[in-house]
Amino acid sequence: MEDKLMNAIQDEYPEDFAWCYGCGRMNEHGHHFRTGWSDEQTITLYKPKKEHTALPGFVYGGLVGSLVDCHGTGSAALYLHRKNGHEPGDGAEPPRFVTASLHVDFLKPTPHGIELKAIGTVHEIHPKKYRVETEVYAGETLCARGEVVAVVMPDTFLGK
Amino acid sequence: MEDKLMNAIQDEYPEDFAWCYGCGRMNEHGHHFRTGWSDEQTITLYKPKKEHTALPGFVYGGLVGSLVDCHGTGSAALYLHRKNGHEPGDGAEPPRFVTASLHVDFLKPTPHGIELKAIGTVHEIHPKKYRVETEVYAGETLCARGEVVAVVMPDTFLGK
Repeated sequence: MEDKLMNAIQDEYPEDFAWCYGCGRMNEHGHHFRTGWSDEQTITLYKPKKEHTALPGFVYGGLVGSLVDCHGTGSAALYLHRKNGHEPGDGAEPPRFVTASLHVDFLKPTPHGIELKAIGTVHEIHPKKYRVETEVYAGETLCARGEVVAVVMPDTFLGK
Repeated sequence: MEDKLMNAIQDEYPEDFAWCYGCGRMNEHGHHFRTGWSDEQTITLYKPKKEHTALPGFVYGGLVGSLVDCHGTGSAALYLHRKNGHEPGDGAEPPRFVTASLHVDFLKPTPHGIELKAIGTVHEIHPKKYRVETEVYAGETLCARGEVVAVVMPDTFLGK
């Protein structure tokens, strides 16, 4: 499995849609999550910052939840983009998704100081709605299991 | 309903346990969520920072998830503390909880620039496990509904 992502879906969003605190490349204070393909699954890598603690030595659960959230919308966008015949990096503007629901089961305390790896599997519910199952690993340890239902961004978000 | 919290459960945690990025008062970079009683329900107030955007004008879902998460553990701690005969501010050390699972349904886009209000109802599953139902309001608008299962912090978290 690759450990660096070349082409992430978030790199392709137009600037107007690149301000997400989790995954927007224009948001200077944000996490800058980047999500790409790894064979038929999706992957997001992130090393939590020093301050992202629950207790000293363990990662804050809300940060894991944020990772699952943006990994979910990014994975759904990758999936639909591929279905439409595109891959990140080919110059086509990808679809954008919003989160309808987020669920995280915290299986083990997530150790701090290690890069986290979110691995996702996308399931189509219908053409505008996808369910993304995600496993979050710290090294070889499965620490959390998440599920996001992501929907194509409705026009109401765009002020239309 | 009160708009300022006098006594929050997070004010009572010993310093060793006050480093949570969401609700630890010792974490200088964190959100500093504070959770107290409002009659028989629990309340956390938080105004998202400028950078906590999904798109410009709307709050980042991961931040709403973090609010639901810490509000959940704080609410469970308030509930068990009261069951043990204590209220925050009386000098007794409260129990601490960790999140077993987090669920958030995003009902409406959460407008940015307004203080958010998380209102919780605690249900006992068994003496060490509680389910907290939370509604997140921006002004009068119900934007998200969340559920946390919180368990008394196991000794494994404490390195014992």
